[in-house]
Amino acid sequence: MKHIAIFGYGVVGGGVTSVIEENREAIARAVGDDVNVKYILDLRDFPDSPYGGRVVHDASVILDDPEIRLIAETMGGSHPAYELSIEALSRGKHVVTSNKEVVANFGDQLLACAAEHGVSYLFEASVGGGIPVIRPFLTSLAGDTVVGISGILNGTTNFILSKMKSEKRDFSDVLAEAQVLGYAERDPSADVDGIDAKRKIMILSALATGVLPEDVDVYAESISKITPEDVSAAERAGRVIKLVGSFRLEKGSPAIYVCPQMVKLDDVLASVNDVYNAIRVKCSVTGDVMFYGRGAGRFPTAGAVTADIVAALSGAAAAERAPVFTKKSGAVADFDKVRFSYYIRLADASPSDAEEDLSRYFDRVECVPGSPVGKAEYICGEASGKELRAFTSSRDDVESVIRLAE
Amino acid sequence: MKHIAIFGYGVVGGGVTSVIEENREAIARAVGDDVNVKYILDLRDFPDSPYGGRVVHDASVILDDPEIRLIAETMGGSHPAYELSIEALSRGKHVVTSNKEVVANFGDQLLACAAEHGVSYLFEASVGGGIPVIRPFLTSLAGDTVVGISGILNGTTNFILSKMKSEKRDFSDVLAEAQVLGYAERDPSADVDGIDAKRKIMILSALATGVLPEDVDVYAESISKITPEDVSAAERAGRVIKLVGSFRLEKGSPAIYVCPQMVKLDDVLASVNDVYNAIRVKCSVTGDVMFYGRGAGRFPTAGAVTADIVAALSGAAAAERAPVFTKKSGAVADFDKVRFSYYIRLADASPSDAEEDLSRYFDRVECVPGSPVGKAEYICGEASGKELRAFTSSRDDVESVIRLAE
Repeated sequence: MKHIAIFGYGVVGGGVTSVIEENREAIARAVGDDVNVKYILDLRDFPDSPYGGRVVHDASVILDDPEIRLIAETMGGSHPAYELSIEALSRGKHVVTSNKEVVANFGDQLLACAAEHGVSYLFEASVGGGIPVIRPFLTSLAGDTVVGISGILNGTTNFILSKMKSEKRDFSDVLAEAQVLGYAERDPSADVDGIDAKRKIMILSALATGVLPEDVDVYAESISKITPEDVSAAERAGRVIKLVGSFRLEKGSPAIYVCPQMVKLDDVLASVNDVYNAIRVKCSVTGDVMFYGRGAGRFPTAGAVTADIVAALSGAAAAERAPVFTKKSGAVADFDKVRFSYYIRLADASPSDAEEDLSRYFDRVECVPGSPVGKAEYICGEASGKELRAFTSSRDDVESVIRLAE
Repeated sequence: MKHIAIFGYGVVGGGVTSVIEENREAIARAVGDDVNVKYILDLRDFPDSPYGGRVVHDASVILDDPEIRLIAETMGGSHPAYELSIEALSRGKHVVTSNKEVVANFGDQLLACAAEHGVSYLFEASVGGGIPVIRPFLTSLAGDTVVGISGILNGTTNFILSKMKSEKRDFSDVLAEAQVLGYAERDPSADVDGIDAKRKIMILSALATGVLPEDVDVYAESISKITPEDVSAAERAGRVIKLVGSFRLEKGSPAIYVCPQMVKLDDVLASVNDVYNAIRVKCSVTGDVMFYGRGAGRFPTAGAVTADIVAALSGAAAAERAPVFTKKSGAVADFDKVRFSYYIRLADASPSDAEEDLSRYFDRVECVPGSPVGKAEYICGEASGKELRAFTSSRDDVESVIRLAE
């Protein structure tokens, strides 16, 4: 019997106990032994749960128990998840997590601590929920070089953007519906402002390069300013607006950013709708591969946590190459210098004046067909953020600017 | 230094030597030792290749060499790949392969032989070329239950169907172009008639169920009868024709088949175009996950073979649960009893007579909008193959029947 504990008995933590229960035999076969959830750490009590008797409020009871081989950390947030994970790893316990915030901020230290103490720190569930992506990255793509990543990494924003398009509704209206459906939090900023997606692209970039970027070096932009006019313009330009997290090499330095991007309709990312996520990885040998599935949700995420529990307890994870993350300041390309093409909408501009003006800042200027009366819309490229700003600050009729996906 | 040999120095085998050479350092880091291609087995000589001096024509030279730890079998075909692989495994050498035919026909025996001799038999490259799918199946989805698989498993046929649609050309015309481009063989039947895709869905089904189906129990249908009229009808019905390999449970028994299917446009499989492949796996805990990428090609496939070489030599594969395949007759649902909905086109039928007739055989009969003059087109469902045949044999004006994807 192998004993484990779950830290945080919320949506994911509760899902993990269910998944372990329902797949008891398959898990025992894969691990080579029964797996028992001996403790649950939570501030609350759960008198009505069959696991109620296993709830403790003091982490040291669990950390001091030598029978506990593994902690499934599903608390979320940086603190105290970071301190508790470091403590557990230092005492020779494996830690598996669904907590992207702690991995994005402290993954370097947590992996180093695990390596030092000969245990595993696994975080498959932190990116893409139930989609297998971290392990394939480390195993199947070992010996290949990752040169780019583009992902739809947040289900809430993808749901909102999909509905804005299919039902021609505006952002705040669809957000309210997503909140009623439970797809968005009451305070939706972590999703809507790209913070959740940013943590995920930070983790993926670290897997690709070994360097965990600093939070402040990664650009993130909200979808809240996207309007029905933007959505319609994208359609007329043969594109669709998605919140995309990207990693690419810009003159050898990694450029890492999350922002609304107009994706071409024939790009597979364009057909990833609703709460689905997809991560496309560009490899030098293998070419493009993409992983797709439900990026969130109790059971998909709990399934990924459980797969990590199996990998840690079976010894499979120990035989795999564990990633090493280092932090290095200045490792990320200055976002202001990263070059994009743009969709630009001007309010009440006379096209001839606008085109002449645009062509001073951009090599390529194309009209978007079917613009609404009194507006002028262009696809312009390529320019850095700095060059773009020189243009936008020169006029007072710039109504919308959206980057084009590569 | 770990010594390996490559059996078959064709497109994939040659790619493996290149990938190993170009990624020497990353591979050494992952394996923990340098990897050296000591021999190449081929009937031909390669005097101009830098590996020319390592070519041998007699397999026993390699099999008898105790230094050889691993064989990369990239010969293709069942024989002598099967006999040579069994011999290598019996002598305690790992075998990794890109050969779907030998895995689909003899995977049960090859895996049993590997287990018996404490070595690995790995076949990531046999399905989906460079797309990581076999290993995620065995690791990330361990402890979950696979209840369905749908895949675009053959790049040649997907290229042909994509071109037929986008350029409104007929099958033989596009096939000829594919042959010129090197996407189709001079004898295209293994691709066009679904034989290649059938081997891949057999392997995937075996991973899901543990039972390797008999070749004769798996239905495969060619795309050669698909006409521009069918392609246009699919468009008018909001669908697109793809050659899909499927595994699903039909009253508890696995139904396994490859045939042209009309896929709904909002299904992600619909947007998998050209030579790309995609494998969608329906899991009871994780929900739908999909793996996408280039399904063939020298470097993607060689990359997958190399990843298996790394997994075998590093010991990572030994720590993973190796699959066990058994053969069991009658394990597969009788294809004639599997229920589908259908697209049916009648030539020169008067719609009233046709609808009345169809409704005797099918619960649901809907007209497809915009049919060409003199033709009648319907979406009908659901019926078994047997019931369908009762209808088609009752009339002499049935011009086309295509199954709808679920």
